[in-house]
Amino acid sequence: MSAVTAMETAADVLEIGRPFALESGRTLETVRVAYRCWGRRSPAGDNAVLVCHALTGSADVDLWWGGLLGEGRALDTNRDFVVCANALGSCYGTTGPSSPGPDGHGTWGPDFPAITVRDMVRLQALLLDHLGVSRVHLVIGGSLGGMQALEWAASFPERLDAAAVIAAPARQSAWAIALSHAQRAAIAADPRFRDGRYPPDDPPREGLAVARMIAMCSYRSWESLEGRFGRNEAPGGGFQVESYLWHQGRKLAARFDANSYIALTCAMDTHDVGRGRGGVEAALGRIEIPVLVVAIDSDVLFPAEEQWRLVEGLSKGRLAWLSSPHGHDAFLIETERLDRTIREFRQTAIPGRREEGTHEP
Amino acid sequence: MSAVTAMETAADVLEIGRPFALESGRTLETVRVAYRCWGRRSPAGDNAVLVCHALTGSADVDLWWGGLLGEGRALDTNRDFVVCANALGSCYGTTGPSSPGPDGHGTWGPDFPAITVRDMVRLQALLLDHLGVSRVHLVIGGSLGGMQALEWAASFPERLDAAAVIAAPARQSAWAIALSHAQRAAIAADPRFRDGRYPPDDPPREGLAVARMIAMCSYRSWESLEGRFGRNEAPGGGFQVESYLWHQGRKLAARFDANSYIALTCAMDTHDVGRGRGGVEAALGRIEIPVLVVAIDSDVLFPAEEQWRLVEGLSKGRLAWLSSPHGHDAFLIETERLDRTIREFRQTAIPGRREEGTHEP
Repeated sequence: MSAVTAMETAADVLEIGRPFALESGRTLETVRVAYRCWGRRSPAGDNAVLVCHALTGSADVDLWWGGLLGEGRALDTNRDFVVCANALGSCYGTTGPSSPGPDGHGTWGPDFPAITVRDMVRLQALLLDHLGVSRVHLVIGGSLGGMQALEWAASFPERLDAAAVIAAPARQSAWAIALSHAQRAAIAADPRFRDGRYPPDDPPREGLAVARMIAMCSYRSWESLEGRFGRNEAPGGGFQVESYLWHQGRKLAARFDANSYIALTCAMDTHDVGRGRGGVEAALGRIEIPVLVVAIDSDVLFPAEEQWRLVEGLSKGRLAWLSSPHGHDAFLIETERLDRTIREFRQTAIPGRREEGTHEP
Repeated sequence: MSAVTAMETAADVLEIGRPFALESGRTLETVRVAYRCWGRRSPAGDNAVLVCHALTGSADVDLWWGGLLGEGRALDTNRDFVVCANALGSCYGTTGPSSPGPDGHGTWGPDFPAITVRDMVRLQALLLDHLGVSRVHLVIGGSLGGMQALEWAASFPERLDAAAVIAAPARQSAWAIALSHAQRAAIAADPRFRDGRYPPDDPPREGLAVARMIAMCSYRSWESLEGRFGRNEAPGGGFQVESYLWHQGRKLAARFDANSYIALTCAMDTHDVGRGRGGVEAALGRIEIPVLVVAIDSDVLFPAEEQWRLVEGLSKGRLAWLSSPHGHDAFLIETERLDRTIREFRQTAIPGRREEGTHEP
């Protein structure tokens, strides 16, 4: 292993020079993991807080969860060793479809092997080994990040103190699969997609923009769009909410790789904590650490009911409500309240010395 | 005016040989209206029940609301003169983007003028004049059809006894606009769309299929997709719910015109019963006839709250719940219960002799 610096983000990159076996049975001969750290690792290596990002996120927690990161915050840079890795399959420095292909020519593109949430967390575990982390005090994430946090709890019970699963289900529903399928179909319908073999300088921007528009609907809610836009008209004609969707679509298309988008949404679709573990109930029943489950009452993509069901299956599950009009994206918007919820969970539910002597007010 | 027969459906066609002024200020020089009738017109012409169809429907009520149509049913062919016209802008016989263009060459295509729900109901009124209908006993519809029913109540109070508005709002929300915008963007992203100037034999099938997939998500619900498909895999790989969406997408793309789809979704987006009437509250406040408002508890597209608000604004509004896991499409699926609800409304809420001596059990 050797640490190099990625060009794409502010992240460091760990290059793992040995084969990484995927859940599918396929193997990646080399893997790179882009990651960022805040705070200091304790001498015992037991103060790590692992943050997992959502579908289009990156290791740059400060950019998308800045409100949770800092001294005295939920991700307390004063006492925690905060680590976030770009997910396997993404396009912000970690190996994915836009990485150089196995033959040394071009990129993996659509030939990148299918990956799962379990592959993501196993790669994170290798990174933590490299960083000298013996024990993860807390793993936390929302949406796809929440799926990873739950998989951590099921996969590595021996090296984890607690998990926080925010706006994520025990397994992907037919509803969520349908929404992500429509998004992939929108990408595939763009002739520039060329079955995934598009050149880097001519990607299927329009298809990806449409995919993002579909996703944005599922990330927001009736109430949030009505409150913000109503039937207001845009200066150039049409409704403001239409301009908003175009803007969101174009913005993502300019910063994200379409093959990564497909790989990661497929990974979300395969998410099922019960796979190979005798079903969801059995898998959850074996998780003995405290797990905070945060449900957003207006979440269209992962309705709150999924989180109730999840918490019911956990022996030390604790349900917290994030009441918000903003829908699924509330986990990125309501950071002040989320910060409080997580701090309270850490103070009251996680056993062990790490939470003693807290400098919370 | 002369009645001719359309090739496209089983419908008759009325050709209106004089200009039809649209709400936009533009004029259609000639208009054709495809329509079907069941039952007989009373000598006084006061027993008409006007049925309004949804986005991709046609005048063929027997095909999409067969469970409500027949002797003793909500649309009682024994006593009612049931009339349904294909909506202005659609592609089942009534003038729309796929109709011959004004210059006699080709079709209107993307040059078809913008239409509104009010234009639709005004054209229906002309049809009823032609059919010798002096008074509409009941106007009824779901979704876009419900928007038309509400517009009837606001536009023609003097010739209407009652209205039934099913799963439709007083005005289109930002949420619904966003969902239909994403659908139009999917169509426009298909290079075969060619800004709407596609030849009839090479339409943007893939874009329209993606649009339908997006729409299908909004027509169903978490519960209905989970109950029907869960995480079941399809024989050819992938999940069953994905095959289902492809099937629905292809089926619509084979039977519907993309420019019509755009014209009708835009008409839905402009739907606002309060436009030019001093706002929704004022417009609803002036409706004095009995209006049945049916709310579906699992409706994602037009959440039940919209129907509560609607009924609150009506002086003789009556709210009926259609509790169903099927989401918005419940208005097409739960026909047995809908039939009962409408029959009960007709028996108890509509004054006048037409409902006396009913042969209900």
